Amino acid sequence: MATRREWRLRRRPVGAPTDADLELVTQPMPEPADGEFLARTLWLSLDPTHRISMSDRTQYAPPVQIGEVIGAGSLSQIVASRAPGFEPGDIIRGRGGWTSHWIGRQGSRIDPSQGALTDHLSLLGMTGATAYFGLLDVGRPQPGETVVVSAAAGAVGSIVGQIARIKGCRVVGIAGSEEKCAHVVATLGFDACVSHRSPTLAEDLAAACPNGIDVDFENVGGAVLDAILPLMNLHGRIVVCGLISTYNSEGPVIGPKHFDLVLMHRLRVQGMLVSDFLDRLPEATADLARWKAEGLIHQDLHLVEGGIEKAPEALDVILSGGNTGKVLLHVADPD
Amino acid sequence: MATRREWRLRRRPVGAPTDADLELVTQPMPEPADGEFLARTLWLSLDPTHRISMSDRTQYAPPVQIGEVIGAGSLSQIVASRAPGFEPGDIIRGRGGWTSHWIGRQGSRIDPSQGALTDHLSLLGMTGATAYFGLLDVGRPQPGETVVVSAAAGAVGSIVGQIARIKGCRVVGIAGSEEKCAHVVATLGFDACVSHRSPTLAEDLAAACPNGIDVDFENVGGAVLDAILPLMNLHGRIVVCGLISTYNSEGPVIGPKHFDLVLMHRLRVQGMLVSDFLDRLPEATADLARWKAEGLIHQDLHLVEGGIEKAPEALDVILSGGNTGKVLLHVADPD
Repeated sequence: MATRREWRLRRRPVGAPTDADLELVTQPMPEPADGEFLARTLWLSLDPTHRISMSDRTQYAPPVQIGEVIGAGSLSQIVASRAPGFEPGDIIRGRGGWTSHWIGRQGSRIDPSQGALTDHLSLLGMTGATAYFGLLDVGRPQPGETVVVSAAAGAVGSIVGQIARIKGCRVVGIAGSEEKCAHVVATLGFDACVSHRSPTLAEDLAAACPNGIDVDFENVGGAVLDAILPLMNLHGRIVVCGLISTYNSEGPVIGPKHFDLVLMHRLRVQGMLVSDFLDRLPEATADLARWKAEGLIHQDLHLVEGGIEKAPEALDVILSGGNTGKVLLHVADPD
Repeated sequence: MATRREWRLRRRPVGAPTDADLELVTQPMPEPADGEFLARTLWLSLDPTHRISMSDRTQYAPPVQIGEVIGAGSLSQIVASRAPGFEPGDIIRGRGGWTSHWIGRQGSRIDPSQGALTDHLSLLGMTGATAYFGLLDVGRPQPGETVVVSAAAGAVGSIVGQIARIKGCRVVGIAGSEEKCAHVVATLGFDACVSHRSPTLAEDLAAACPNGIDVDFENVGGAVLDAILPLMNLHGRIVVCGLISTYNSEGPVIGPKHFDLVLMHRLRVQGMLVSDFLDRLPEATADLARWKAEGLIHQDLHLVEGGIEKAPEALDVILSGGNTGKVLLHVADPD
């Protein structure tokens, strides 16, 4: 009998997720009902938001319930279809989750001419669109301004910095190690990068931003944001895209020190989620694909092999800062 | 010999300003040089920002230096002039400061047909413009949305709430006593008001905002903002106009609890200062004067008599929450 395997939430993690928080369940292969398709996961996108959805804090959408499959974006191939517009063999991007096969009704067929399969879950997917709309629509950098990007070697941060460079900004990264910083400067073209593990982070950042900071693309929060805020210029913008330093913590997330600077320097601090920009996705994809073709932008990929059972390990890579670039789990090859 | 009296900063206050922090100095009357005028203060505007300017925290502009006169907006009459465009007898609004007479080069002549003298330092001055641009340009409320205003019985807050009502919003105030709340609802037409001294502030506010909060016009910060943030709706806006709860405190101002909601609900948190809107002042004044003439808006005034020596007492009224509406110090009558 054909089976599928899926990761379900067994209990809500406290701190970093452990084996006991999740369970890998093998099930009979489901069959699509009228209007549905059965899809086979090819690549799974790993994102910090998975950790959020395992907790019961207020979040983007209702959290994963105990016993439910962990939600996630993935690239999949249609196996069987009773849904109009989907044919067996089609490759789609959709919300398949941490599962080898899934039943769905929605997904967007990818254009293979725009890039490799993995591109459609990274630069040309939600990762690239998050960077694109977060920086350009929310951050609104002007040429010559200083843009700071935290988690600069991460999936989104690395793209943000490269777009900011294309737009004529001075770009300063904050990353988790000297090695990541070296990569961000040498390969991705950031003007400077400081390690958030440095005991002199605030001073290092001030030295790297002699004209202050106009736009902060924030992926980390906590002590990193505390170091950034005092450097924000008049009318600066803080794009709050992620607060990964807080995701393994319990209790209320306390705002940054020096919050009065929001008032004194008339800052704009604005939360950002790519879901708010889905109707404009083609705009991002077109620009990003063109910049990639012109050699102006590069997406680092951290590919994890081993199939769906490796999903928790792949998430841990992100939560522990072990990745450079986008983490994707290879689940299966297309037919 | 003619003299003037002025309040100078003797040392930086710790906590609430005391008599020992300021000194009232009597000086020979100055004479205007070429390009300057001598003006006599009629009414002094008292504002929470005076307390900020006495400290050396990062602020809108450089702080008052030790030995300098406390800066403030005032309504004054020209006594003598060697400045083009200013004639003895003219009544102007300008940055005279805590002084009976001052030497200046800049000020805007008021239009007495638009209202009483005191109106030009309140509804038709920076107070009204702060409320107008802060709410409409930064908060951008839509009809039917819920607008919360802290320090609702204060100079700016009382105007904000009335503009929000004119724009078709549900308006909920937060004020410092049951008496203020009763006034805000009965006289100013707010839909509801809760006391920030209530031990159940968070629950009271939730009950008053059954549809959540779309716009928070924030004048207070601290525990008040902590109670507001969890109620903010998706894409809500927090206009950070003041943080008066923190002005008598030392050390860094910590951001609100539940800061992660900025991300999860994609809030926009934006600092606001009326100085950024000076070129559009006539727009605010025209609307506010019209609404006043139509009986749609009312400015409470808390008038303090006794001349310039009462300036510290008048400021203390604000910092201790003793006022309902705009605090103005009567310094002298016009000729």
